[in-house]
Amino acid sequence: MIRFNCDYSEGAHPKVLEKLLQTNMEQTAGYGMDPYCNKAAGMIKDKCLRQDMEVHFLVGGTQTNLTVISAALRPHQGAIAANTGHICTHETGAIEATGHKVIELSSRDGKLTAEQVAETVKSHYSDESREHTVQPKMVYISNPTEIGTIYSKKELFELSRICRENSLFLYMDGARLGYGLCAEDNDLDLPTIAQLCDAFYIGGTKIGALFGEALVVCNEELKKDLRYIIKQKGGMLAKGRLLGLQFISLMENDLYFEIATHANKMALLIKEALLKKGYSFLISSTTNQQFPILPNDILVRLKSKFEYSFWQEIDENTSAVRFCTSWATSPEDVRKLVEEIENG
Amino acid sequence: MIRFNCDYSEGAHPKVLEKLLQTNMEQTAGYGMDPYCNKAAGMIKDKCLRQDMEVHFLVGGTQTNLTVISAALRPHQGAIAANTGHICTHETGAIEATGHKVIELSSRDGKLTAEQVAETVKSHYSDESREHTVQPKMVYISNPTEIGTIYSKKELFELSRICRENSLFLYMDGARLGYGLCAEDNDLDLPTIAQLCDAFYIGGTKIGALFGEALVVCNEELKKDLRYIIKQKGGMLAKGRLLGLQFISLMENDLYFEIATHANKMALLIKEALLKKGYSFLISSTTNQQFPILPNDILVRLKSKFEYSFWQEIDENTSAVRFCTSWATSPEDVRKLVEEIENG
Amino acid sequence: MIRFNCDYSEGAHPKVLEKLLQTNMEQTAGYGMDPYCNKAAGMIKDKCLRQDMEVHFLVGGTQTNLTVISAALRPHQGAIAANTGHICTHETGAIEATGHKVIELSSRDGKLTAEQVAETVKSHYSDESREHTVQPKMVYISNPTEIGTIYSKKELFELSRICRENSLFLYMDGARLGYGLCAEDNDLDLPTIAQLCDAFYIGGTKIGALFGEALVVCNEELKKDLRYIIKQKGGMLAKGRLLGLQFISLMENDLYFEIATHANKMALLIKEALLKKGYSFLISSTTNQQFPILPNDILVRLKSKFEYSFWQEIDENTSAVRFCTSWATSPEDVRKLVEEIENG
Amino acid sequence: MIRFNCDYSEGAHPKVLEKLLQTNMEQTAGYGMDPYCNKAAGMIKDKCLRQDMEVHFLVGGTQTNLTVISAALRPHQGAIAANTGHICTHETGAIEATGHKVIELSSRDGKLTAEQVAETVKSHYSDESREHTVQPKMVYISNPTEIGTIYSKKELFELSRICRENSLFLYMDGARLGYGLCAEDNDLDLPTIAQLCDAFYIGGTKIGALFGEALVVCNEELKKDLRYIIKQKGGMLAKGRLLGLQFISLMENDLYFEIATHANKMALLIKEALLKKGYSFLISSTTNQQFPILPNDILVRLKSKFEYSFWQEIDENTSAVRFCTSWATSPEDVRKLVEEIENG
Repeated sequence: MIRFNCDYSEGAHPKVLEKLLQTNMEQTAGYGMDPYCNKAAGMIKDKCLRQDMEVHFLVGGTQTNLTVISAALRPHQGAIAANTGHICTHETGAIEATGHKVIELSSRDGKLTAEQVAETVKSHYSDESREHTVQPKMVYISNPTEIGTIYSKKELFELSRICRENSLFLYMDGARLGYGLCAEDNDLDLPTIAQLCDAFYIGGTKIGALFGEALVVCNEELKKDLRYIIKQKGGMLAKGRLLGLQFISLMENDLYFEIATHANKMALLIKEALLKKGYSFLISSTTNQQFPILPNDILVRLKSKFEYSFWQEIDENTSAVRFCTSWATSPEDVRKLVEEIENG
Repeated sequence: MIRFNCDYSEGAHPKVLEKLLQTNMEQTAGYGMDPYCNKAAGMIKDKCLRQDMEVHFLVGGTQTNLTVISAALRPHQGAIAANTGHICTHETGAIEATGHKVIELSSRDGKLTAEQVAETVKSHYSDESREHTVQPKMVYISNPTEIGTIYSKKELFELSRICRENSLFLYMDGARLGYGLCAEDNDLDLPTIAQLCDAFYIGGTKIGALFGEALVVCNEELKKDLRYIIKQKGGMLAKGRLLGLQFISLMENDLYFEIATHANKMALLIKEALLKKGYSFLISSTTNQQFPILPNDILVRLKSKFEYSFWQEIDENTSAVRFCTSWATSPEDVRKLVEEIENG
Repeated sequence: MIRFNCDYSEGAHPKVLEKLLQTNMEQTAGYGMDPYCNKAAGMIKDKCLRQDMEVHFLVGGTQTNLTVISAALRPHQGAIAANTGHICTHETGAIEATGHKVIELSSRDGKLTAEQVAETVKSHYSDESREHTVQPKMVYISNPTEIGTIYSKKELFELSRICRENSLFLYMDGARLGYGLCAEDNDLDLPTIAQLCDAFYIGGTKIGALFGEALVVCNEELKKDLRYIIKQKGGMLAKGRLLGLQFISLMENDLYFEIATHANKMALLIKEALLKKGYSFLISSTTNQQFPILPNDILVRLKSKFEYSFWQEIDENTSAVRFCTSWATSPEDVRKLVEEIENG
Repeated sequence: MIRFNCDYSEGAHPKVLEKLLQTNMEQTAGYGMDPYCNKAAGMIKDKCLRQDMEVHFLVGGTQTNLTVISAALRPHQGAIAANTGHICTHETGAIEATGHKVIELSSRDGKLTAEQVAETVKSHYSDESREHTVQPKMVYISNPTEIGTIYSKKELFELSRICRENSLFLYMDGARLGYGLCAEDNDLDLPTIAQLCDAFYIGGTKIGALFGEALVVCNEELKKDLRYIIKQKGGMLAKGRLLGLQFISLMENDLYFEIATHANKMALLIKEALLKKGYSFLISSTTNQQFPILPNDILVRLKSKFEYSFWQEIDENTSAVRFCTSWATSPEDVRKLVEEIENG
């Protein structure tokens, strides 16, 4: 059985493990106050071409999202998100558990538009009894989105402009950021994101690390006392250096981008094979997640050799599913899947 | 200026005030442990034809909703509600502030159907990674709804059946329950509600009381330690008897239903006048709230003499607004509004 | 049975009821946006000799405390309180339920000293791993305290100075503020409190009103969006004017202080009688609450005619109890109690 | 500089790393649903001589504590803890952030007694207005405690009995459980703990793992839907197998106990050296944490070569500090410290 169901089936990239091994018996301070976290933070600041940022390392994505949102909002405030957003769908109400409503806007491609956000804010403040409704204060976006699409520089710029005009924080969930930044049609980069967002995270768990997300805080307002809140929410790793070390490995020689590019390439091979057979897709993705719509009988057949994720029923006979590649996906395994598709 | 914008513009029905005056200098125990609360609870149990219930008196609706929901749910559970529901729209995220997601289902008439609920539950439990999503555990409905519609006995029965089959609590927000039960097309009554719901409240604030809601808890599971949670959420009135006294007045001789019937009658006079002029409505309501769609120029003219609530923009030239009557609405004031409409 | 167990056994002062009656059929805007709330707020500002304040009216004390504290603190911050404080002992964890630890300091007289606060803050910030501990950000005091003692101007001044030096909010729970300000040994007044505290509330429930507390917000930082949070926590009364009207009655001709003075006088009569019989007290109080230590057999005898509150066991044979007077306590009832004590 | 300040200065025991390396490129299901977590859970059940338990693997201690407590308690309930308990002192209010008060009882040796718990419960339920106070529902203990002491079988048995008689959950924080179970004066073992506690965790972070705690749930009531809450609180690791793998390594051939024994032995060497020089201790500990009281000038001298944790000021000239050993502490490093002490 070969797994294409997600991008966290294996352990870590060998270079990441190597660094952990080399430093294993060193003694360092705990809780992220060690030289390795410091070095990793510096590497990320350099890549963002911005030194006036804070970088914190957390273990996972849900933890990072709930920590940032809880730190940023007052009790009556909420975060706007696309209804496909991870915080709406797959975090078991983690944001609500910290007391905040997620203001869900409908979206077909997983993205929010500046217009949608502007309208939501306008509608809130033009209501005479606005105090009876949740105040929008943050915009949460994922890039790439949960369905593999990416924001263009222009889209992000517009979102950022609307957010700043309306005193909203713009926060980007970058669980798969590398895959997005390495997509062939991408025109965003880290320095631009660091200019346009108030906070974002560079996902490690799904791109080469054993675990770990690098939270980058750009807006001064969001920096204050963040470590207290990371600790309170259970996100402060005792042996924090394990996170710093992993991100050093990923940033060195741009390994992060190299392996993300590989994963995207693997995904496009699968996409091509599916297109060639005439299958349509739920959405057009250029990143490591592909969402083809396939006949159920084909799916049953594939299931015997390959794991994929069921996504949604389309009609009686067809379903949308997800194929995922990662830094660890081998061309050999992709070839097997492509063959199976071609013979489908 | 005559106010038709809501049903809480005046104080209390004179009989309610009278009781407060008569008992003012009596000494009683505090926090709802007095004989008046006890008596009022008994009267409500009698009217529900059910003695194995608990009745608690709280000050307001948001407070009641957040207390019940917070008491009923575990951290990972949420309440299903129509997207027009009060807890979704006009409680500033009170439910989320207690840690729970409101699972919003779209609804055109303000009501939830048993099918919608069944599908939501099925979809949750058929998901392999259900633990990553909020578990539906309660169904929140309003009767009448926030847009004036009411549940039929059949509809409530079906909802109740689905809830019991799926171990969901069914909770009815009865902020305007009297208006619903006295609507001309209503076939529900208190005993039926007390059989079909796990908890509900009989709204006093909007029907004759200075303030106050009688929370009725039918399901044994929801009774335990509820007073602790009422206290914690700030809903336990020191001079609790004020609530008991008001509900005694409202229950005596069915004053509650008498004044609700009056309000509905007043609302239908307005509805008729609007229909006669050919105006359409956002939704057909037989209760004390009417939602006509009117030309903006007519609305501007009315505004000089009458308060109404703006509801939503329909198009460039027309808007839906709300006219509300109450126990306190005088036929004289309605006549003035009707005349203005007829001359519109 | 005559009740001396608390100060909320009766309804409201007749002048308060009168105002409610007179205005009952008037139509006003809801949720505190009416002219009466506005007028009452103005009267309070005038008495505080300070116009740059916000006044909000809430129904009860627990609700007010949890709303203010939740609005003022970020997630990792806590409120320092004496371990006898209402928020520590009698609010069923209401503050914790909004996510915040109450940092309890021990106190024999119910008061906090500036030194205690300074030391707590110093200890927090001198800890290298301070991020692992709750950050003190507010000082909660009650005046009078839960055991009847009062702060002197000098004590409050020192507390305020320490708070400002350390960026802590100083919040005074004034559930019984009138009784404190009218104590014979008091040297505080509203203008001083309004200068030294960041927020405080003037309690109505226990001094003449049916219910209601006037929350006064002096610090600009605490004003922003407070109405959202009042609504979210269930503290925004639909017929908000009921609160404004009551406070107008209480402020007119200083009724509030007149009736508080009366209650204190009644309490001192009881105190005197007890002292004359040689009984000691848990603490020396000059306000409406008295905490004598009495032989259990005397207490049993009193119990047949008078209600008091059990406070704590002192030893096998004696207990501390609370006798409470209020605006409503009649000299006649006090005379009966005094006689019983004298014959004890 | 040699670190004795904590037990998490190094990475992981080589055998733990080895297992991670060996399995790195295997593909498994995520979120703890893999064969390795399953195997590790089985090994732990076997060691506890109890199969009717659930074992969940989480990343860290604060996360585990807040998850269990939040899952176990209803909103009005609190956890009793010694005032030295980790949840009282070093989790930045994590428990309060989930809405629950920690009921702190004073303790000189870091332990709670059955009598203290019984009294707290009795005092709560004998209060007529108990609904105004937080209901005790859980007892949180640490073993070893935060100051290195351990519970005897008799003490734990008594605590357990009181808890069961009063329907309290007994939860043991085992962040350093191995060090406790391997102490020379210990008479507890895993099967006994699994019989007497409702839940406990076996700490990995501080005993040989890179990170990770094995939460063992013995009480049926606490099992339901726990995975939802682990996910919600951010504690469900995507590559969950990393936790399973580490615990397999630790359980194989009782490595966990072997390395804990080593750490204790190293700590006793330090203790002996200090005793020989006539120093006293804050508390007598037989585990890997030692809390000597030392002259400040000696401490300054030690500081140049060794890291220790400052614990508390004793008087002007002396302070209590913590020396910590771990699985990774070398006899060579201990020898250096001992020499320095001897020459002190």
